[in-house]
Amino acid sequence: MTDLLRREPHVIAAGVGLLADALARQAAQVTRVDWAPPMPGTEADLAMVLADQRRAAANSLAVQRMLASRAQLVDVVQAGPALGLGPGEFLHAGPPISWERASGPLRGALMGGAVFEGLVSDPDAAENESALGIVGLEPCHHRGAVGPMAGVMCPSMWVFVLEDLADGRRAYCSLNEGLGKVLRYGAYSADVIERLRWMSAVLGPLLQAAVRRHGPLDITAILTQMVQMGDEAHNRNRAGTLMLLRDLLPSMVESGFASSDVADAARFIGGNDHFFLNLAMPACKLALDAARDIPGSTMLVAMARNGTDFGIQVSGTGSLWFTAPALVPVGLFLAGYGPEDANPDIGDSAITETAGLGGFAMASAPAIVRLVGGTAATALAATRQMYEITLAEHPLFGVPTLDFRGTPAGIDATLVARTQILPQINTGMAGKVAGTGQVGAGLVTPPAEVFALALRELAARAAGVRPP
Amino acid sequence: MTDLLRREPHVIAAGVGLLADALARQAAQVTRVDWAPPMPGTEADLAMVLADQRRAAANSLAVQRMLASRAQLVDVVQAGPALGLGPGEFLHAGPPISWERASGPLRGALMGGAVFEGLVSDPDAAENESALGIVGLEPCHHRGAVGPMAGVMCPSMWVFVLEDLADGRRAYCSLNEGLGKVLRYGAYSADVIERLRWMSAVLGPLLQAAVRRHGPLDITAILTQMVQMGDEAHNRNRAGTLMLLRDLLPSMVESGFASSDVADAARFIGGNDHFFLNLAMPACKLALDAARDIPGSTMLVAMARNGTDFGIQVSGTGSLWFTAPALVPVGLFLAGYGPEDANPDIGDSAITETAGLGGFAMASAPAIVRLVGGTAATALAATRQMYEITLAEHPLFGVPTLDFRGTPAGIDATLVARTQILPQINTGMAGKVAGTGQVGAGLVTPPAEVFALALRELAARAAGVRPP
Repeated sequence: MTDLLRREPHVIAAGVGLLADALARQAAQVTRVDWAPPMPGTEADLAMVLADQRRAAANSLAVQRMLASRAQLVDVVQAGPALGLGPGEFLHAGPPISWERASGPLRGALMGGAVFEGLVSDPDAAENESALGIVGLEPCHHRGAVGPMAGVMCPSMWVFVLEDLADGRRAYCSLNEGLGKVLRYGAYSADVIERLRWMSAVLGPLLQAAVRRHGPLDITAILTQMVQMGDEAHNRNRAGTLMLLRDLLPSMVESGFASSDVADAARFIGGNDHFFLNLAMPACKLALDAARDIPGSTMLVAMARNGTDFGIQVSGTGSLWFTAPALVPVGLFLAGYGPEDANPDIGDSAITETAGLGGFAMASAPAIVRLVGGTAATALAATRQMYEITLAEHPLFGVPTLDFRGTPAGIDATLVARTQILPQINTGMAGKVAGTGQVGAGLVTPPAEVFALALRELAARAAGVRPP
Repeated sequence: MTDLLRREPHVIAAGVGLLADALARQAAQVTRVDWAPPMPGTEADLAMVLADQRRAAANSLAVQRMLASRAQLVDVVQAGPALGLGPGEFLHAGPPISWERASGPLRGALMGGAVFEGLVSDPDAAENESALGIVGLEPCHHRGAVGPMAGVMCPSMWVFVLEDLADGRRAYCSLNEGLGKVLRYGAYSADVIERLRWMSAVLGPLLQAAVRRHGPLDITAILTQMVQMGDEAHNRNRAGTLMLLRDLLPSMVESGFASSDVADAARFIGGNDHFFLNLAMPACKLALDAARDIPGSTMLVAMARNGTDFGIQVSGTGSLWFTAPALVPVGLFLAGYGPEDANPDIGDSAITETAGLGGFAMASAPAIVRLVGGTAATALAATRQMYEITLAEHPLFGVPTLDFRGTPAGIDATLVARTQILPQINTGMAGKVAGTGQVGAGLVTPPAEVFALALRELAARAAGVRPP
C-alpha cells in the first residue's frame, strides 16, 4: 500500500467520465474503459444466467451449428401442401397475434390474401377475420417459414423450399413481389392481386421447372459472394438477385416454357433488386433453426415482428416468444410520406440480423446508408458495435473493408443485457393504414424489454439445474 | 525581421525529415509538408509547361468532355467491316510494334489469330508474320478500338460497338473469352481456337440479335452501379457482367435463336466474371477520346502496353505515343507459375485507369486485393494517392467507403512529374512464352520515362505558342 502511494499513479477509469476528467486535469495517467451498467432490472437474472455452468458449452454448440449450416434451394412449390395450410388458413410474420391486435399493414395483407384465395371479392366490406373467411392465423415461424414485412402466406401462393445440407432441415419463404404497392407492405389493390395471380400461374411453376432441372442451388455460396458485392442481404439484395438469375436462367430457358413467359420472368426478377431477400431469409432461418433447443444457450434464434409486437426466441428456451411493443423505425421516407405514416416495425426479415447479416453486415454495404440515412462511417460503426453483443464472426461473411473479418453473428442475450447495446436492424417501413404499401426505410432496434423477459426465463431455467 | 526573431517560431518543413526532426527536438512548432522534388530531368520542361497559359482552360475542357461521356452498347458486329480490316490484317494492344520486337504472348495471340482466320493450320511451323499470313499489324487504338492483354483482333472476330451519347463517336472491343488458356493471354491451342469459332458462330450473332432487339444499353450506368458493388472494372467485373446478363437475357430469349444456344450463351457469360471488361474498356475509351486533341492539355487520353513497350498519349499532343520498356507486374501467381514466367505488362486495359477506374477505383473493390496482393487498406491508399495526380473526381463513380467521393479521374502529366507518383494499374499477367496463357495478376505502373518524354513534347509545343 505504501509502495502504491509512492509510485506514479496509473488510474483505470470505467463508466462516467467525471473522475477520469478530473484525474487528467491533474496530469495523472488515465486509461478510460468504455463501460455501462447492465440493463436496469436484469442484474439478478443476469448473475444467475452467467453462473449457469452449461452456458459456455451450450453457446459454443449453438454457434457451431449455426455456422455449419449450408442452405440449398431445392424446390419451388405451392404453400398449401408444403406448409400444411388448408383453405382459409393464413401465416403471418412475427410472434402470434390476433386480428383484433393486428396492425394496418398486416390486416391489409390478410385482406389481399383473402381476395387472392377467392374467399371474398370486396375486402373493404369485411370487418374482421371471419368475414374475410380466415379460419386460421399462425406465425410463419411455427411452420418452418419466414415472410418479409406482413409475411402473409396462404395456400395458393408459391414458396421457395430451402434445405440445409448439414442436417436435412427445410425452410420456406414466399416469392418476392417487388417494391412499393405490394401485399407484404399491406397493399391489396387490384394490381397487387393481379401480380400475385401471375406469380402463381407463371413464375412459380417456371421457377419450379428451372430449379428441378438445375438441381440444388447453393444459397449460402451466393450470400458469401453478396457480402463482397455491397449487399447486406436485408435491404440490399441486388448482387444476390443477379447471381440467382445467372444461375437459374439457363435452366429457365431450357424448361420448355414459352419464350415470352421466360422473358417476362427474367424481366420481373431482374427488375426487382429485392427478389433474393426471400432466399436470404430462409437460409438464415435454416442456420438459426440448427441452433435451436440447446439447454443453457443464451443465443437468439429468431427476431421477428408482426407490426404490433417485437418477439425474440432464444436457443435455451425452446419455442417461447418474448415480446414487447415494436418500435417505429427512424429513416428516410418515400415522396409524400413522413414519420406519422409509418407503422411500427414489421416482418420476419430480422432473421437476417439474427444470423449476422442485414444491419450486422452494414459495413459490407455502405450504399445502404443512402437508403436508411447515415454515412459510410455509420455503416462501419454499426457492424463494429455488433461485435460487442455477438458470440462469433461468421467465417463465410467476410467484410471487405474490415479486411474480410467475418460479420458479427449469434446474438447473446446476456451480452445485450450487460452492455445495453441493442441489435441494429435495417428495415423497410410499411404505411400504418391498411392498403398503403411501403412508405420508407430505416433503422430500428428491438425493444429492450424482450431481453429482460428472456433473461428472466433463462434465469428460472438456470436455477432449476443448479446443484442443490 | 527583428519582429520575426522575437516571436515564437512556427516552421514549415518540406522534403527530407532531418530539419523537421531537429526542430522538433528543440521544441519548435513544426508543420511537415509532404514534398518530393520533381521527376529528375523534367524540371525545365515542367516549368515551361506549367507556364503555358492555355493549360488550365485546356485541362478543364478535357475533364468536362471526359465526364460528359455516356457510353451505350448499340450493336455487335464482325470486326472486319467495322474496323476496316481486310484478310490478314490484325490489330494488337498498346503502341505500334513490329513482329520482331513482339513479346511471347502477343506472338502467341497472333499465331492463334492466324489459325482462326484460316491463314495457317500449323502456327508452330511459321517463323514470322509473313509465314503466318499477316499482312498488316496496327494498334487497336488506331482503329477506335481497345483490346485486353495481347488485344489481337482479326476480321472474323465479333466486336461490341459502343456509341457516345454526347458526341456520336464509336469505340470497339472484342468479346471476352474467359480466363486461363485464352487467346488474349497468348494461348493458341485447339481448345482456344474452338472457343473462338463458337463465339463467332453463335455468341456474336446471338448478342447482335439481342442488342438490336433491346435497343441501346447504357454501359455508363452499369459502370456507375459496379463501383457500388465491389467492382473496379478492370480486374473485377463480376457485378457488371451480371447486370449485362440481366439486361440482355430477356432479349436473348426472345431472339428466335434455339433455346440450347441461348442457354449456352447465358452459361458462358454467367461463367465468366470478366465478360464485362470488354464493355468497360471501350466505354472508357469513348470518354477519353472525347478529351483528345485539346492544345495545351496535359491530360492523358491513353495508357496502353503491347507486352514490350508501355505507351501513353496526351490530349495536347495528338496521336503521338510516348513509349518506354514496359515493367513486369508484381503480384500473385497461379499454381505452378512464378515471377520468372511473367511477361512485361501488356494490354489496352489500362484505359480503365486512365478514365478513373481499375487501380484508381481500388477503394471500391477491396476484394481485388486478394487477387493482386495487399489489404483493404492498400486498396484505400491506392485510390487516395491517385487524387494527387488527377484533375477531377468522377461524379458517376462514387466510392462507398469514401462516402461516395468520386474516383480520381483524368491523369495530369505535370502532376505525375511534379510528385513522382506514378499511376497505379491492376493487371492480369501473361506467360512470357507464347502459348502459355495467364500466369497471375498484380500491380504495375508505367515506366517514369514516358512522362518525361510527354513533358518534353508538351514543353516544345508550349514554347511554340509563347508570346514573342
